[in-house]
Amino acid sequence: MARLDFWFDYASTYSYLAAMRIEALAEAANVQVHWRPFLLGPVFAASGWDTSPFNIYPAKGENMWRDMERLSTRYGLPKLHRSEVFPQHSVLAARIGLIGFREGWGAAFTKAILTAQFAKAGRIDDAFALEHALKELDLDPEWVLSEALDEVNKAKLRLETERAAGLGIFGAPTFVTGGGELFWGNDRLEQALEWAAEEA
Amino acid sequence: MARLDFWFDYASTYSYLAAMRIEALAEAANVQVHWRPFLLGPVFAASGWDTSPFNIYPAKGENMWRDMERLSTRYGLPKLHRSEVFPQHSVLAARIGLIGFREGWGAAFTKAILTAQFAKAGRIDDAFALEHALKELDLDPEWVLSEALDEVNKAKLRLETERAAGLGIFGAPTFVTGGGELFWGNDRLEQALEWAAEEA
Repeated sequence: MARLDFWFDYASTYSYLAAMRIEALAEAANVQVHWRPFLLGPVFAASGWDTSPFNIYPAKGENMWRDMERLSTRYGLPKLHRSEVFPQHSVLAARIGLIGFREGWGAAFTKAILTAQFAKAGRIDDAFALEHALKELDLDPEWVLSEALDEVNKAKLRLETERAAGLGIFGAPTFVTGGGELFWGNDRLEQALEWAAEEA
Repeated sequence: MARLDFWFDYASTYSYLAAMRIEALAEAANVQVHWRPFLLGPVFAASGWDTSPFNIYPAKGENMWRDMERLSTRYGLPKLHRSEVFPQHSVLAARIGLIGFREGWGAAFTKAILTAQFAKAGRIDDAFALEHALKELDLDPEWVLSEALDEVNKAKLRLETERAAGLGIFGAPTFVTGGGELFWGNDRLEQALEWAAEEA
């Protein structure tokens, strides 16, 4: 079956748009999606950036937020309502996400966390907020956090981030087809799915 | 009538894609397009860049060229065939473009120059290449170049570039509707036209 890897960061605005859209689009295209959380921070650091380029270049950032508002409306998502902190530290969310994708609730958790962050002005960078999200999904936060903070899981996230950089990934979301074709950005989701379907 | 300003730079890859598509799409949307050449160089310099970010960040650049190949195919444009120099100095082309839009052959000149640069590996940064393009359009290169190099025209290009920066433009192409809504990137052309049409 056709395969598409969906590389994303829990603090990334356009990853939110892609996460909310990818399941329905992939089903229609008959493509199997593999959700791959990673950390943009180390990738940005390699470019000499210590924060998001949307903060470093204010005109670019202002356009991004306006674009996010317009696209949220266009996609039928809730009205954008962002927290004053951007980007938020996403390492704990990503560690939990890895457990979620292992256990089968990863997509639900990811959509909940991204929606909280960009449509409800929520914080996702502390254990309390993440515990709340896990409870909403009827999960046991204590067990999940202990798995997430296990050294093996932490190492797995570092490895995934290195893999992303090794693939030439420089932003999020990025889609990589089974055949290795890389597409950057929410704008390319439909095209990436088409490509993956044609490969199969 | 609905209006859309199309801000572009003659050295910009995605400006090429937009220039080749905008006329048919604008006609279908019943939107009047105003082509506005400007120079990205001074805008990039304000961000501390002395060349294209596609050169400064190699992974981003590699992705851009692959994306350009795929999109050229998708849009039915000629196969991408680029010159080894990128970005090329676009100031003379932009000065000629301003004369062209005053005289009624601006779009034809712009499409020819961008196609030469990205589909025929051509140079656009010297008078000889530009004279050749003008001759192909049955224009008098000597007259055009003297108009282009007139101090009033040079000042006009500087003013247009300042206007672009003043609008918050940070990349090309950028589309600005009659109502002042700004859309960045070839990816947003269809959406910008829709927005402009709805305003009118």
